[in-house]
Amino acid sequence: MRSKAEGLGTVLRYVRDAAPCSRAEITAATGLNKTTVSSIVGELLDRRILREIGAGGRRIGRPTTLLMLDGSGHVGIGVQVGIGHLTAIAADLAGRRLLTWRQAYTTAERGPRQVVAHIARVVRHAAERVNTAEGSVVGLTVAMPGPVDSAGVVHGVPFLGWPHVELRSDLVRALDGPAYPVGVDNDAILGAVAEHRFGALAGASHLAYLAGPPGSGVGLIHGGVPLRGANGYGGAFAQPGIDAAAEFDALIGRPGTTREAAIQRLARQARAAEPATLAGLAEVGARLGRAVAVLADLLNPAVVLLGGDYARLAPWLLPTAGREFRERAVTPNADALKLAASTLGSEAPALGAAAVPLNVIERN
Amino acid sequence: MRSKAEGLGTVLRYVRDAAPCSRAEITAATGLNKTTVSSIVGELLDRRILREIGAGGRRIGRPTTLLMLDGSGHVGIGVQVGIGHLTAIAADLAGRRLLTWRQAYTTAERGPRQVVAHIARVVRHAAERVNTAEGSVVGLTVAMPGPVDSAGVVHGVPFLGWPHVELRSDLVRALDGPAYPVGVDNDAILGAVAEHRFGALAGASHLAYLAGPPGSGVGLIHGGVPLRGANGYGGAFAQPGIDAAAEFDALIGRPGTTREAAIQRLARQARAAEPATLAGLAEVGARLGRAVAVLADLLNPAVVLLGGDYARLAPWLLPTAGREFRERAVTPNADALKLAASTLGSEAPALGAAAVPLNVIERN
Repeated sequence: MRSKAEGLGTVLRYVRDAAPCSRAEITAATGLNKTTVSSIVGELLDRRILREIGAGGRRIGRPTTLLMLDGSGHVGIGVQVGIGHLTAIAADLAGRRLLTWRQAYTTAERGPRQVVAHIARVVRHAAERVNTAEGSVVGLTVAMPGPVDSAGVVHGVPFLGWPHVELRSDLVRALDGPAYPVGVDNDAILGAVAEHRFGALAGASHLAYLAGPPGSGVGLIHGGVPLRGANGYGGAFAQPGIDAAAEFDALIGRPGTTREAAIQRLARQARAAEPATLAGLAEVGARLGRAVAVLADLLNPAVVLLGGDYARLAPWLLPTAGREFRERAVTPNADALKLAASTLGSEAPALGAAAVPLNVIERN
Repeated sequence: MRSKAEGLGTVLRYVRDAAPCSRAEITAATGLNKTTVSSIVGELLDRRILREIGAGGRRIGRPTTLLMLDGSGHVGIGVQVGIGHLTAIAADLAGRRLLTWRQAYTTAERGPRQVVAHIARVVRHAAERVNTAEGSVVGLTVAMPGPVDSAGVVHGVPFLGWPHVELRSDLVRALDGPAYPVGVDNDAILGAVAEHRFGALAGASHLAYLAGPPGSGVGLIHGGVPLRGANGYGGAFAQPGIDAAAEFDALIGRPGTTREAAIQRLARQARAAEPATLAGLAEVGARLGRAVAVLADLLNPAVVLLGGDYARLAPWLLPTAGREFRERAVTPNADALKLAASTLGSEAPALGAAAVPLNVIERN
């Protein structure tokens, strides 16, 4: 039933962009026939993904019922596992946030079982809040800083010390087999999804998102679609000279302080123009610039965003990153590329994770 | 009319894989309704892209007419501009080659105008041959070793000394505005298209093709679709340490001999285990291995192919390339990746170019 599901995505995308609009307008714009549009709209009304907003007055004769996105009752939950913190976001299908929850949480010395149990607790709390607000959870996605395959198996997250964890099925078990679908995905891909949908440069069809440590992956959107490769393992960027993460961590790392405190200290030192800090950040920026050059030459994105901790130090990273990128890249298009800091903050992957159910409905 | 065109591609792909097959089987397998399938099949029969092959005897009652791909009359022409040679291939939509033509042709000291005039002459000859065989030309695509945008403008081909040439429109003019569509594309992308359709590992949905000098680009297929980026400039791979082309050319380069003679000499020396040659090829292989590691980590292809001149020296490049790749890559999937030499030879881009019309019909 490929064509029916495709039609549903087509209708939903059109309504999202053109709402309020009538069934006749959908028929004219999408090339789907009247019966198909009528059946798809009916289904979307039943599922409360669309709603009718009364009559449009533009036509003579019968009033036309106009449609727009509802989705207020449908809530996606996104959970992001980071260094020293866990972030949960609940957002409805129209993109409104119901809940943002950032919690100090150290994964060090905790095994997968404990982390899974904790994620499940956070999700249950979030789901209760959603239910209290008379919404229903339509999907849960967990953003992990490492490669994740299409079955939700996490393969090697060095900072967690996890070699191979069947996170999706473990989590489904810990949640007693919830009614909504559960997914696990790479944090960089979900960050890219969030930027593509909600970011300052949203809508750019060719976009790359550099997630920053701990995962340090690159989330790639090409023609509006995330690139995952044959097994879902795309987005790693660990070659010498272009991997900025180790350099960045060396600059951050001072045992005994939290990562948050270390980032704030670094920003303070940079603002005070401390030479060693400026030099260190310039070197991280240069490596990021080389990574951007590889991406620009290979995949020709229109937009590259520095996410995560990189975004917080962007004022000192972007100048050298831009210079190094323009020096190295051979693409004819270097000047057209927009290199900028993410405006969605370090919780972009959690936001992208919460938006997965909407993406799924639109894409299928 | 997005859904109608999509339906056409769906039907065509199904028939290509499942032929001979009936309209009822197409309806059942594609989820398209009976009327739509009937109308699409009618159009494809009219265009002689499908043909009926009489009755299938499997059913009781009325005999069922079976369908299969025809396309014998529809011929795509591909022209590839290389170092010291020009290759033209004509192939019908069923993939049968009608013509393969490799010609010594030096672009050095020739400007774009002369090269365009020469390509036009070759195309006219090929088109005459196609007409003599009672076929009709349904498309022409030229494979260029450099970045090409979607308007067919070539941006900087160093070995030609071309900074910016409107190749597509120049060629349309030189051919007096032919009835068939004319395209220009990057040689690496077209090599990847050829491998995806006709190569020994055809059908792998995630595939990379390293074109080899002079362009030295990477053609990328992801989920069956070529990656071109925002402007069509993807596929360049020129960063220090991962660019094997300069190293390779230094090994080849001895002024006064043709490139063909130089490659043959190199292969002879390698077979005789000449230490300097083996060391040189090992270094080229190591750089290729680093490039493969970047590709594997970033895009997780299932197959990476060495094309062009690399393919001809593959016995001496693949061992170090494989070793270096496995040492460098961080993807969990390194062992599953198939790294091999192209079996389509140095004319793979010309073959991919000839196949473009079929791709266009199936994809739209």
